[in-house]
Amino acid sequence: MSAWLTFLAQKRQQHLDELCEFLQIPSVSSLPECAEAVVEAAEWVANRMQSAGIEEVCVFSTGGHPVVYGEHRHATDCPTVLIYGHFDTQPVDPEDLWEQPPFDPLIKNQRIYARGASDNKGPMLIPILAVEALLKTQGTLPVNVKFLFEGQEEIGSPQIPEFLETHQELLSCDLVVSADGVQWAADQPAIYLGFKGICALQVDVRGPVTDLHSGIFGGTVQNPLHALAHLINSMRDADGEICVEGFSDDVQPLNDLDRQQIAAVPFDEEAYKNRLGVKTLFGEPGYTTLERAWSRPTLEVVGVWGGFQDEGIKAVMPAEAHAKISCRLVANQTPQAISEAITRHVVRHTPPGVTATVVSLDSQALPYTIPSDHPGNQAAHAVLKKVYGKDPYYVRLGGTLPICDMFLEKLSAHTVMFAFGLDDECIHAPNEFFRLQSFERGLQAYGLLLEELATYPQGNQ
Amino acid sequence: MSAWLTFLAQKRQQHLDELCEFLQIPSVSSLPECAEAVVEAAEWVANRMQSAGIEEVCVFSTGGHPVVYGEHRHATDCPTVLIYGHFDTQPVDPEDLWEQPPFDPLIKNQRIYARGASDNKGPMLIPILAVEALLKTQGTLPVNVKFLFEGQEEIGSPQIPEFLETHQELLSCDLVVSADGVQWAADQPAIYLGFKGICALQVDVRGPVTDLHSGIFGGTVQNPLHALAHLINSMRDADGEICVEGFSDDVQPLNDLDRQQIAAVPFDEEAYKNRLGVKTLFGEPGYTTLERAWSRPTLEVVGVWGGFQDEGIKAVMPAEAHAKISCRLVANQTPQAISEAITRHVVRHTPPGVTATVVSLDSQALPYTIPSDHPGNQAAHAVLKKVYGKDPYYVRLGGTLPICDMFLEKLSAHTVMFAFGLDDECIHAPNEFFRLQSFERGLQAYGLLLEELATYPQGNQ
Repeated sequence: MSAWLTFLAQKRQQHLDELCEFLQIPSVSSLPECAEAVVEAAEWVANRMQSAGIEEVCVFSTGGHPVVYGEHRHATDCPTVLIYGHFDTQPVDPEDLWEQPPFDPLIKNQRIYARGASDNKGPMLIPILAVEALLKTQGTLPVNVKFLFEGQEEIGSPQIPEFLETHQELLSCDLVVSADGVQWAADQPAIYLGFKGICALQVDVRGPVTDLHSGIFGGTVQNPLHALAHLINSMRDADGEICVEGFSDDVQPLNDLDRQQIAAVPFDEEAYKNRLGVKTLFGEPGYTTLERAWSRPTLEVVGVWGGFQDEGIKAVMPAEAHAKISCRLVANQTPQAISEAITRHVVRHTPPGVTATVVSLDSQALPYTIPSDHPGNQAAHAVLKKVYGKDPYYVRLGGTLPICDMFLEKLSAHTVMFAFGLDDECIHAPNEFFRLQSFERGLQAYGLLLEELATYPQGNQ
Repeated sequence: MSAWLTFLAQKRQQHLDELCEFLQIPSVSSLPECAEAVVEAAEWVANRMQSAGIEEVCVFSTGGHPVVYGEHRHATDCPTVLIYGHFDTQPVDPEDLWEQPPFDPLIKNQRIYARGASDNKGPMLIPILAVEALLKTQGTLPVNVKFLFEGQEEIGSPQIPEFLETHQELLSCDLVVSADGVQWAADQPAIYLGFKGICALQVDVRGPVTDLHSGIFGGTVQNPLHALAHLINSMRDADGEICVEGFSDDVQPLNDLDRQQIAAVPFDEEAYKNRLGVKTLFGEPGYTTLERAWSRPTLEVVGVWGGFQDEGIKAVMPAEAHAKISCRLVANQTPQAISEAITRHVVRHTPPGVTATVVSLDSQALPYTIPSDHPGNQAAHAVLKKVYGKDPYYVRLGGTLPICDMFLEKLSAHTVMFAFGLDDECIHAPNEFFRLQSFERGLQAYGLLLEELATYPQGNQ
């Protein structure tokens, strides 16, 4: 057994205690009242990096939530790897469905439960601890390593493009390795070849100048709630196909290799349905469930509100109704074109008697792809095969990692996904958890990956 | 000038002070936390009745919010009139749109602003003060008078049917006169011939067992928000016609007299649109706006919610989505038949991948009509003509006064509407107000009505 693996085994309890401490910080990036907690999480990360032996550790202001940088660059003539993750979390609502307070971590059944456990505090702590183990046992690293951890991933990383732009030299690298993302299953690795982009919008419908008595005025003016329902219903047909004109114009169709790679991944529809608690699946005709989830664009309403929501009833036709829409994009869609298409659609389909406006929300990102035979993926393939004893699948993800496209654009480096959360771990939902087995496996895998990347082709520095 | 009118003029400031005191009690019947305030309002009313010289004043428990009874029965061989009103109010939300605290009354520009000012605390105080003026100046009343004021009108009077049932003898009368309702305009009286019934329902759509990440799972399962939008949209067509099968089966069509009476009422469509702040009116084709508002059934969604409603965006497909629906019914529709029709419709139109349930809410009431030549309406006609100097219109109301049907059923007495609020007074909405002119006119009119009713045909006692 390598000395660094022995070191990790000895520190197991300390690492879990540290993760619990990290998870106690309510670093919800979307809530203004949590801004100080996001800073606290950044400082926690910086302190832990320094004690790991990482150098030049710095918490950078960005104008929004901070980022944390650190490096260890003593591997002469070796490639440089930038390791990425995020220490901010999603909100916790609906909080009453949590079985324990979301920021009071609980270890139970070999899992650690807390908001952020799987997305992404557990996984992002792994490379710090793996580097520490290598440094404390060998004194050196097989590659040059830079770290970039951010505190605004869950709100679409608004200040990160500018940060990358203004720190291109500091961050320059041959390859980015992301500790954010997921693995395929507890006993099956995967290489991720693509993520969807995102375009988030709000639709605001306004009718009468004030709330009206629904008895006295009902039946005589357009009700914003009915108008909003009509608009939402007009955006997808009964089969789930998106019918916003122009929405799919730029979509790159799936080719034969895409479909073969996706079809090679086992998919148990019954297990999927049971896990989600639905009797039937639903989505765009002509595609398999995995194709829809991974490689087809989506339009999902993520929030609707208007009128009276309390107990009982109130006789009101509200003056306003609202919806939030999140579209996931595939190559070569752009958030701007999608926003324009939906705006045109809303203009065209707004019923008489109300006005409707479409506002772009902060979450906007391009889709991202990386070839399956990219040298970074080859290195990941070798390590994952060693750790899991199996060839990884080539898969994609319906989620969005806007940072990948930003790294490609600003640093000219592709990103290899090397993360150990699993997608049944209730991320973005109540009772999020992270498997302790994944935590340990990730530590081993990161050590091996840095060794494997010693032979990665350079030329970007 | 009659002595009782002089008395009222002398007491003007005292009466306004008393109304302000009454309006300070936050007697919102739909909010459990306001239950004590509803009791406080009942006691305020009882005290004021006693000081007016009304006898046998009693606050009755009902199992829900209380009712207040009182009487003055010394007019031998004269008819008995039961005067009705309510001291509970609607909620105040959205509170941030009020220009002053809703329970801190403000008199400005000859109007008194507060929640409940027009519906119904101002108008219900009028008959108490009018009876006081008659008693303090004449010592007697021209008819026997009973008072019934309730504290649960805004939640559909759930305990009132049982109260009427068990107090039939106490409440027996020849005619009910309601101080709840509205007048046509500041300078134009009207006789009300009909009110719509109500059927309030909640639709709950449930999909996946938990909230899901909208990126990872989007496009593969039915989204409850889209399913709810589809259900809402399926209930009315693009023209606003209700397309719930069976909904209109029992509707009594408008006859020629109905349409003539309605057409005789001037209606300024431009003024109506300007007042509501809409560019165009909207509703069922084949009917005038007044016909739709007064005599055609409606189906209005009064509240919708589900998913993320805060600032920004959250990547979530919610497990649930909800809507509250309020239907207004005309003769001879029943809440039960409407509830069943909508339930069948929802079962039939629920998209695959979700379940939807329909729950009846507490507000359920039959529609009510009274002939235009009813002797009670004849008396009201004579008084209104004297007070306003004009013949009243024969009109109807899209709103619901469930109590009228209850009185007809339990006490075998029709109800004459004799109320002085106006429908531009923001009832059920922010910045509700009541005109001081209406307050004074109502005091005079109630005194005259009691005199006029001395010749009302008896036979019900």
